[in-house]
Amino acid sequence: MIGKSITAIETPCVLLDETRLKNNIQLIQQIAAARNVCVRPHIKTHKCFDILRLQIDAGAVGITASKTDEALMFINNGVESVTIAYPLVVDSKLDRLIQACRSRDVDLRLIADSFAGVEAISRVAKRYDTKVNIFLKIDVGLHRCGLTEDDPLLIQLANAINHDLSLNFLGLLSHAGHAYGVPTADDVRQIAREECQIMGRVQRQLERSGIEVKEISVGSTPTVLASDSYDGITEIRPGNYAFMDRTPLRLELIEPNQIALSVLATVVSANSDYFIVDTGSKVLSSDLGAHGIAGMKGYGLAYPVDEFENKEYETLVLKLSEEHGFVARRNFDLPIGSKIRVIPNHSCVAANLANTYTVIRDDEVIDQWEIHARGKVR
Amino acid sequence: MIGKSITAIETPCVLLDETRLKNNIQLIQQIAAARNVCVRPHIKTHKCFDILRLQIDAGAVGITASKTDEALMFINNGVESVTIAYPLVVDSKLDRLIQACRSRDVDLRLIADSFAGVEAISRVAKRYDTKVNIFLKIDVGLHRCGLTEDDPLLIQLANAINHDLSLNFLGLLSHAGHAYGVPTADDVRQIAREECQIMGRVQRQLERSGIEVKEISVGSTPTVLASDSYDGITEIRPGNYAFMDRTPLRLELIEPNQIALSVLATVVSANSDYFIVDTGSKVLSSDLGAHGIAGMKGYGLAYPVDEFENKEYETLVLKLSEEHGFVARRNFDLPIGSKIRVIPNHSCVAANLANTYTVIRDDEVIDQWEIHARGKVR
Repeated sequence: MIGKSITAIETPCVLLDETRLKNNIQLIQQIAAARNVCVRPHIKTHKCFDILRLQIDAGAVGITASKTDEALMFINNGVESVTIAYPLVVDSKLDRLIQACRSRDVDLRLIADSFAGVEAISRVAKRYDTKVNIFLKIDVGLHRCGLTEDDPLLIQLANAINHDLSLNFLGLLSHAGHAYGVPTADDVRQIAREECQIMGRVQRQLERSGIEVKEISVGSTPTVLASDSYDGITEIRPGNYAFMDRTPLRLELIEPNQIALSVLATVVSANSDYFIVDTGSKVLSSDLGAHGIAGMKGYGLAYPVDEFENKEYETLVLKLSEEHGFVARRNFDLPIGSKIRVIPNHSCVAANLANTYTVIRDDEVIDQWEIHARGKVR
Repeated sequence: MIGKSITAIETPCVLLDETRLKNNIQLIQQIAAARNVCVRPHIKTHKCFDILRLQIDAGAVGITASKTDEALMFINNGVESVTIAYPLVVDSKLDRLIQACRSRDVDLRLIADSFAGVEAISRVAKRYDTKVNIFLKIDVGLHRCGLTEDDPLLIQLANAINHDLSLNFLGLLSHAGHAYGVPTADDVRQIAREECQIMGRVQRQLERSGIEVKEISVGSTPTVLASDSYDGITEIRPGNYAFMDRTPLRLELIEPNQIALSVLATVVSANSDYFIVDTGSKVLSSDLGAHGIAGMKGYGLAYPVDEFENKEYETLVLKLSEEHGFVARRNFDLPIGSKIRVIPNHSCVAANLANTYTVIRDDEVIDQWEIHARGKVR
């Protein structure tokens, strides 16, 4: 496949534009340098060693992961610092993670938002006679995991961590995922500011109780792109930025030519309303946006392959079956067998459905990268 | 893992109830026998040799598939009769499929709804000096692929197939996927009747033109379950019936205890509105129903593991992040670390996200089955 034009390859496939990918990685490092924070990319977006290598080479300090077995893939591939930004509460997962990190001397950072979670981490850390770093997870508005700033548990849990000899209280961690669902870039900027303010207030609350907050880790791609300062923050953990997608585009945080991931499809049928293409919910996913937030119509922006990102040829994938996309017809025809390119609503979940990235430079295939941690769901 | 209770295994995982699976397979064979039609199950639902074995042992005449490479996995595993119920229009896919079927003496059946498709099949059939069976794809109301009964192309295309020495015109094929989106079982039954009527009218139209219709293949799980007769039909191609899910349940076509597939998850956090569980859109998918038809609220029915299918403990997965499910709280508590079971909106896409089925009898794990054709997207 390498050396071929994308007009000559089989579909469906997930295209990754190498130049845009590298530019995105540089962009976030530049933002981080200007704000004086570290970058710890979330690898749930790409699950790929080749992409992490580019991120590390550009200055990333380690990885963020949600799943134990995804993290272990990267640990076994030589990653030296790992944050699991997900509440691990089950001993068996903590066991294989802490064991691997101890034997490979990996800097492991976990989060907790419950006594059950803190106790599980402490129990397994003792089993391996080691000390595990813990962030308190703070809910800054997504209303998912984490403690709110007014929760009395906050001080109690921080104290419990602080007094446990097998745990090291590292600081605070948050994810402002609700930023994906707001109408404008200004709203995102406001959420980024509020996140810093909340984290600052929690820090002062803990320090008044004599608990040192060494690190404050925040981050989502929209808030990083919209942020104007990161006062008091030590680290950002964006993931989606490597690829971008229709969501930051909708929020006017990026230009179309910053989107590195697209899906290549073939027109297999047509009726009076739709071109039918070979890219359905098993390729694009049915996501209307991150965190199930429905901010967009349809499942992706679609273009004839030779008119990619040309507004005059832009149309929508309006409906999906498992292996069919319903592309709304406009004032042009597309022959059966011709190709279209789709910008998905949410690139992280599209990547999750693929086995490989077809890496392109301009419109030529230059490489294929395996999605190494694909399917490591636990 | 085998021999363990589901309360003692890691999550997320896709549970498959062996008894229910076998009952579903028997049920469809009994319906088919009563209606005097053959069963050719769509393997896109399960992609698993073990499940196909049960279907073949129960009387299935072969498989239906959408993707070339999924079909090839099953052909290489010994399947002797294959319908690709998807318009193949690209030479390279036809090439490897026709080559494999010829060398293994597999009865291959393709569909077409365009001259481009017919020409591609003919071209590749000639290359292998073989004769390929073709169904005309008829649009019976989903408005996706296929020709409508009043389309003048219908006779032209049937004639083109009939006059091509490398093609064998087999008959008509349809999929009444719009049945997934209607309000009641009676509506589904009406669609099943209309499908038979449309197919009968097209058959008579073709026969008046001297074109013999040897087979008429229809089918979707809801229409098969709702149908009262299959006059003139030779074959049904349901897929979802092996697992069932929330969709036939919503349509009152099945009882809850007929749903064979569920997702096991762990409560990892909780807030005032939600239990947060380790099962998000990367496990359940974001499908609101088949063909993107939004007939249901939320992403699945959820129950505490010890109260599975107990209406008094039933709640909803109301929102999804990639690795988190937001389960609506009710009048009971669930401790962190406890387990829930989820009945997904759409089991085919949940299975598509997994690597294995955890096969259970009652609440004990009895086997693990690989999802052999997972990721064969082309």
